[in-house]
Amino acid sequence: MSYNLLKGKRGLIFGVLNDKSIAWRVAERAYEEGAQLVLTNTPVSIRLGTINELAKRVNAAVVPADATKVEDLENLVRKGMEHVGGQFDFVLHSIGMSPNVRKGHTYDELDYTFLQQTLDISAISFHKMLQVCRKADAISEWGSVVALSYIAAQRTLYGYNDMADAKAMLESIARSFGYIYGREKKIRINTVSQSPTPTTAGSGIMGFDNLVDFAERMSPLGNANAEDCASYIVTLFSDLTRKVTMQNLFHDGGYSSMGMSFRAMKVYNEGLEYRDVKEDKTHR
Amino acid sequence: MSYNLLKGKRGLIFGVLNDKSIAWRVAERAYEEGAQLVLTNTPVSIRLGTINELAKRVNAAVVPADATKVEDLENLVRKGMEHVGGQFDFVLHSIGMSPNVRKGHTYDELDYTFLQQTLDISAISFHKMLQVCRKADAISEWGSVVALSYIAAQRTLYGYNDMADAKAMLESIARSFGYIYGREKKIRINTVSQSPTPTTAGSGIMGFDNLVDFAERMSPLGNANAEDCASYIVTLFSDLTRKVTMQNLFHDGGYSSMGMSFRAMKVYNEGLEYRDVKEDKTHR
Amino acid sequence: MSYNLLKGKRGLIFGVLNDKSIAWRVAERAYEEGAQLVLTNTPVSIRLGTINELAKRVNAAVVPADATKVEDLENLVRKGMEHVGGQFDFVLHSIGMSPNVRKGHTYDELDYTFLQQTLDISAISFHKMLQVCRKADAISEWGSVVALSYIAAQRTLYGYNDMADAKAMLESIARSFGYIYGREKKIRINTVSQSPTPTTAGSGIMGFDNLVDFAERMSPLGNANAEDCASYIVTLFSDLTRKVTMQNLFHDGGYSSMGMSFRAMKVYNEGLEYRDVKEDKTHR
Amino acid sequence: MSYNLLKGKRGLIFGVLNDKSIAWRVAERAYEEGAQLVLTNTPVSIRLGTINELAKRVNAAVVPADATKVEDLENLVRKGMEHVGGQFDFVLHSIGMSPNVRKGHTYDELDYTFLQQTLDISAISFHKMLQVCRKADAISEWGSVVALSYIAAQRTLYGYNDMADAKAMLESIARSFGYIYGREKKIRINTVSQSPTPTTAGSGIMGFDNLVDFAERMSPLGNANAEDCASYIVTLFSDLTRKVTMQNLFHDGGYSSMGMSFRAMKVYNEGLEYRDVKEDKTHR
Repeated sequence: MSYNLLKGKRGLIFGVLNDKSIAWRVAERAYEEGAQLVLTNTPVSIRLGTINELAKRVNAAVVPADATKVEDLENLVRKGMEHVGGQFDFVLHSIGMSPNVRKGHTYDELDYTFLQQTLDISAISFHKMLQVCRKADAISEWGSVVALSYIAAQRTLYGYNDMADAKAMLESIARSFGYIYGREKKIRINTVSQSPTPTTAGSGIMGFDNLVDFAERMSPLGNANAEDCASYIVTLFSDLTRKVTMQNLFHDGGYSSMGMSFRAMKVYNEGLEYRDVKEDKTHR
Repeated sequence: MSYNLLKGKRGLIFGVLNDKSIAWRVAERAYEEGAQLVLTNTPVSIRLGTINELAKRVNAAVVPADATKVEDLENLVRKGMEHVGGQFDFVLHSIGMSPNVRKGHTYDELDYTFLQQTLDISAISFHKMLQVCRKADAISEWGSVVALSYIAAQRTLYGYNDMADAKAMLESIARSFGYIYGREKKIRINTVSQSPTPTTAGSGIMGFDNLVDFAERMSPLGNANAEDCASYIVTLFSDLTRKVTMQNLFHDGGYSSMGMSFRAMKVYNEGLEYRDVKEDKTHR
Repeated sequence: MSYNLLKGKRGLIFGVLNDKSIAWRVAERAYEEGAQLVLTNTPVSIRLGTINELAKRVNAAVVPADATKVEDLENLVRKGMEHVGGQFDFVLHSIGMSPNVRKGHTYDELDYTFLQQTLDISAISFHKMLQVCRKADAISEWGSVVALSYIAAQRTLYGYNDMADAKAMLESIARSFGYIYGREKKIRINTVSQSPTPTTAGSGIMGFDNLVDFAERMSPLGNANAEDCASYIVTLFSDLTRKVTMQNLFHDGGYSSMGMSFRAMKVYNEGLEYRDVKEDKTHR
Repeated sequence: MSYNLLKGKRGLIFGVLNDKSIAWRVAERAYEEGAQLVLTNTPVSIRLGTINELAKRVNAAVVPADATKVEDLENLVRKGMEHVGGQFDFVLHSIGMSPNVRKGHTYDELDYTFLQQTLDISAISFHKMLQVCRKADAISEWGSVVALSYIAAQRTLYGYNDMADAKAMLESIARSFGYIYGREKKIRINTVSQSPTPTTAGSGIMGFDNLVDFAERMSPLGNANAEDCASYIVTLFSDLTRKVTMQNLFHDGGYSSMGMSFRAMKVYNEGLEYRDVKEDKTHR
């Protein structure tokens, strides 16, 4: 189903790994809505994933770039603009990775070189991308930029580790640069704070499946999936949301505004009950 | 320009007074996007305003109702559903009025009967409307409900008076009922916190014009107007935002995330300078 | 243990029912810290509870007043000031009650007369108290006013019902009146958002005990109890916090900033496991 | 005036430069309240400033340390604990600096090596300090840690530059580490978001004086100064606030909850008027 919401628009999409990636679904939906796309990821992610398969389906160019390297971004923007024949109307930043998480360093045993990498990959890359775009005048007036975030930026989840700090910084960059790019070029910058989504990246988080279950039962509408997210982001890229900027937008089935749902509490209550049952057996 | 975003959808719109009303613009945009509409307002507002003119343009029925009266709402819902031939897919609540403001009672001299009316008109009417709709099963699964709010719900503005408390309550009702209607019928409920907008209601606020000027200079994208707001609300009514619920969504050109802009500070600085100039003259 | 933090200060305390009341503990602590007190509650609560026992222990006067009645409040303020021989330096508002909760009306079956009472008792009484105090000039310069709130003002908890909306309004009143009383008399007004506390009022909420268990395991420091709350509020009444105003202050062992703790997740996981165990038995 | 709130407590204070520093006033107040102190700063700040003068007055040891260097922090903690003869009961982090601001790089022309330094000095140093303390078991059970923040973490102020992102990250670290240190040792970690304060660091921000004027007129209680801040932080270090953790606490005379005050608007209005006057002259 298409509304032609992005007809004639050109987009740049960071962070497609494979068909589980949110960025993959955003690219598909943006294409369906009429956009012309450039996809990018690091050379190693391009090798490991299936971005080229997507590129074929959505008739997009793939330009490799490490988003932590300014020169890569400059090259990407130049080639990308050549490919689409003009400025970008929208950009998606869907990048996050923590070497501390990967290597099993807990938050009280952070490796500071890894922390720097977490920040560089997951937050500073967003600033670099924006700064490079601005210098190259690569985003059109009234363009729209979205980065993907997570509620860990506001509330601590065990195991999410230094990614929480990176997401907090990411959301701050959206505000800080949103002011500058807004007053100058009317370009809006927002973050979407998405339900926990079983992407390749998300699944790496400790105890992820049960966390997803909890979020599902807490959220009156259930978790938002990658497909839902793509639809929502399409509206943010469209001309219908031109005055929304510097916001962190929760897209989570209501999770962020829930204190406790009946359904989630029921499972919790059964957990307490089970403890009693087990203890009872032990003490017989 | 139409995307057919609301094609085949039926909507119920509260709060059209005249062509300055946000609700008026929402109705026009919803109609352009393919929706079939029922408009409502109190009998007195219908008489004073021009809702029937709009109804003709957007081919809508007008059903009078005082949104503080449950029986009026029941009648409205019944007749409205008859008119559109089924359940509503979206509802807009754009109602607010403070007798304390109108009669010049400041916040430290509130008349409590008036306060009760402020709450009843501006907040409780939202609950009544939702409760009546739910009992009549008047909103379809995955339907969308939006109420209009203002940043006074979070931050105090001199002169906004008891409307601030009413808006805080309105946003709370969106969350509280959003949980119930979400888990039961997948219906989402959000508030849109809009830039100060020169509607007939807004213009009644003390010092409104200069406040609009301040907000305009603070917001990197400038204030969102009624037209912008209508476009945004269309996306919230569409099927593309199904997992957004229980949120207060700022639609304000970035204002809510600004601490101080260069442009607004410049005027402020000139105010300080002018004071010096005037004082200088006085002391010569 | 006393620091004489409130030496020479006079306080007015609403909401003592019995020794489980937070207000009871605040009165005790304030007395230990050197304050002279006036206690108040409705005549019926005075009869049902043990406020007079407390009054004896802390050498306080008890002046009956229904905080929803302006004339009662006027009488209270006049008599209270006579008793302490001057203006109050601090006031505690610890009042909340929902007839809808009591009579078992769910949030989608609200009785609107009851809702009005919920608001009047739990939120508007705060405004009335402040307006009456201001007119009588009953609070000293740099005085401090605190009202007790709960996180339901921000996040929906099943069963908390219309009290959520009342708390949202209460917090808004703190801001709205905080502006006026601050600029005029340097009086600060804040709300303390307390952990779920097993008071007589709290225990009435559906499923309260398990909710307390969940909050306990979510909060890194565990739930704050009435004793903790009293200590905290003493600091807010002291001269050391003079520039804190219009804030909602979470006093909850960290709960409000938690997304998920390891300890709470463990119980939840066992609930899921138990479901599997039970299902397994069923399908054998 | 002393309440002996910190009697017998040992504290570690980062960030004293000179008598304009907030940390200086905190040290003085903590000393008055009975605490035994260790002060620290970088060798260069010790040379440029007057920390030793303070040390004499409050009978404290000075241990130089660059808070971005783990080995310096390890040495500081070891020597500091030797000096006070045990664990610390409280720690203040009052450190922030942006080479981008100093060297005049605007936010759209950030030098990324400088950004890394901004983060390292202003945010990551807080994590390093906490991680080093935890490994050395240097903070006592129910100890209290405070870091100083600013509202730029939530709302963009022109000219505040990459410090906004650093403060957002700082506040996130307080939450993330607050969870871990809380559940393990009952240690609480909070940030205090202070009014703009004319310290040596603050005064470096572009247009700082007029911003202070604006904040002063916006805040119903006026800006909080360093003295006020010290008093407030003493309460956070005391045993009376043991269940407050992972919070960002606004200490700003109400500023953060203001949308617009009458007094600030008046100056703004005069700025608009002045523009008209000047324009009028031009067009005569």
